[in-house]
Order: sequence, then structure tokens, then C-alpha cells
Amino acid sequence: MTTRRSSASPFRLPQWAIQLARSQHDPFLTKESRMRLVIALASTNVTKGTGGPFGAAIFECRTGQLIGIGVNVIESTNCSHAHAEMVAIAAAQQAVGNFDLGAVGMPKHELVTSCEPCAMCYGAIPWSGVRRILCGARASDAEAIGFDEGAKPKHWVAELNKRGISVVRDLCRTQAVSVLQRYKAGGGRIYGTRRTR
Amino acid sequence: MTTRRSSASPFRLPQWAIQLARSQHDPFLTKESRMRLVIALASTNVTKGTGGPFGAAIFECRTGQLIGIGVNVIESTNCSHAHAEMVAIAAAQQAVGNFDLGAVGMPKHELVTSCEPCAMCYGAIPWSGVRRILCGARASDAEAIGFDEGAKPKHWVAELNKRGISVVRDLCRTQAVSVLQRYKAGGGRIYGTRRTR
Repeated sequence: MTTRRSSASPFRLPQWAIQLARSQHDPFLTKESRMRLVIALASTNVTKGTGGPFGAAIFECRTGQLIGIGVNVIESTNCSHAHAEMVAIAAAQQAVGNFDLGAVGMPKHELVTSCEPCAMCYGAIPWSGVRRILCGARASDAEAIGFDEGAKPKHWVAELNKRGISVVRDLCRTQAVSVLQRYKAGGGRIYGTRRTR
Repeated sequence: MTTRRSSASPFRLPQWAIQLARSQHDPFLTKESRMRLVIALASTNVTKGTGGPFGAAIFECRTGQLIGIGVNVIESTNCSHAHAEMVAIAAAQQAVGNFDLGAVGMPKHELVTSCEPCAMCYGAIPWSGVRRILCGARASDAEAIGFDEGAKPKHWVAELNKRGISVVRDLCRTQAVSVLQRYKAGGGRIYGTRRTR
């Protein structure tokens, strides 16, 4: 991963994740290769016991350059905002030194996430400046293991489209779902619900 | 403001806001006094030029103790998540040392915000653990000066109610709106919209 300014994020990543990101020097040329990385992040977060079964990253759309990564770190950071998508967006914005990843003169960026965004992350996407999102598991897959995904508008994909953001769903869904199921089978904590994620 | 652990937030507050929060030692016994504080935060953020015209805070519902504050700092932090509500929630969670402000054994907490939450902040509220929100201006008031508030579900108040969170709207709305209008009149930047907040 190349960082142009600072890779410091408001949300502290686990050391293994920082090292993994630093070791990625080659661009990710296909959608599937980008999704495989974020599923690996989700899976390793479960294996290492560093958070919930979710991973995300920001890439430059055209070149496949990795700009920022995220895993779910709400427990370790004591911050309920620290979903994988939020962490990845914040890390990428720090890396490029701009709160808008869609600013004039900047290459287009995309968010790749191992699971469809919850209501918060969905709401954060337009403000982030990304122009495309790629999703692995469905929100219903996360709900099937007990998480509350919150209430998004019924036509949330169309709402993102209206704001110039395209959405690709079900990319490597089977592999993404298997991480969720392994987390549940291992007794992973289902945080945030009263109904609560 | 009393902090039980650390008041460090993932989002760096302006120095004037940190000092203002530290100087608040008395509890805020009425809903109106809590709203007046967050409108003052929004107003001072405009006057000092430190961010957008939005302020928020977390209080203990019963005692009125101030737990955390927030102002909009997306430009100064290079982070599009840094809306006032998100900053206040994160600060309060750091202060109590828990990602869940509604955890067992904890007093009930509420979010007070100078403007109704945008789609992101709405989505973040259930995960935060607050049990009530008090809102000043309407989302339509922010949209009237050019901000995009995002697409929340049509029945967003009912969705929060389902999750055990009550909502009070239009508290000191006139005073809250006047801060928005002053920001607009002063040429304040309308960030985040393509349509974008």
C-alpha cells in the first residue's frame, strides 16, 4: 500500500492488519482480487480475535492501487462507529489528505466490503466521495447470524445511484458468508443489538 | 465536564471546544439548557471558522451531566465521518471507556444535536447505545441552505423507537436555524454534496 501523506486513521487498526496492508505493493487488477483481500481481512480479524467478521478497503478504481484498509474494531477502540467500512474510509482520507475521495482532480475511488453496509455505513458512503461499492455478503447474511443491520431506505441502491455511486452486490458472496458463519460457530460476540449490531 | 477515563476522541476537537467543555461543571437540568449548549457549540464553530454549523453533545439523561461534545470538524480532520453527532458519540464512548453507552449497569445517555441527524448519523445512533435524542433544527432546514442530508427511511423516528430510542424534535428550532442561516449568509462552504453534505 502506498500512502501519499499519513496512514494514521482515527481508528487504530490491529498490528497484523497494518503489516498486511504495508506488504501489498502490487495493484489489484480485478474486482475479485479486491474482494478476496477484504474477505481475508475479515477472516483474519476473526482468527486473531481482534474484532467482528467484517473487512473493507478503498482502492483507486482504475489502477487497483490499495489506498486504505479497515476491519471491525469497535471493541478494541471503544467506538461504535468503527465498522470496517468506516475505518477503511477514514484511513483512505488520511492517506490522500482530503475528506473527499471524489474531490476534483483526484482519481475515482471505490469501497470494497465483505458485507453490504449497515444503515450507518450506507449513510456515510455519499459523504466519503467514493464512486462505486463492491459488496460480498448480503445484509441478510449478517442478520442470519444475529446482527442488526439497521433500517436503510428500501431503495438504498437507487439512493446511492442518484448520488453518482454504483453498487455491485454478491461478489464472492459464498466465501464472504463463510467468514460470518465461522464467527458465529466460534461463539463470536454479536454486539450492537437491542435489537443491536 | 467530568471524564471518567480519557476524553481523547478519534476526532480532534478545536481547542476552544475542549476548553468550553472543560469549563462546564454544573449539570444541565433541563432539555432546553442542553440544547442551548449545543447551539452555542454550533454557533461558535461558525464564528471561529473551525467547521460547519452543527453542534452536539452526550448527557446522562437523569442527572444532566455532560459526558462528551462534538462540532463538525470534517475539514480540519480530513474525515467525512466527523459530523458533530459522530464526534460527540465517539468522545463520550472514550470518556466512559465503552463502545456501548447503553451497556448494562450504565446510566442512560442521550444525544442532543443542533440539527436532526443526516442518514449516516441516524444509522450510527442505535449502535451508540443512547436512549433518547433531542433535535433542534429539522433536516429540511439544513437542506434549505444547500446541504444534502442523505436518504433516511421515511419512518426513521419509528425505526429508532423500535430500538428503544425516543426522539424529541423542534427543541429551540428557531435558534438552531438562525445558526444555519448565519453560516450560509457568511459564505460558509457547503461540503459533502454531489448532491453532497
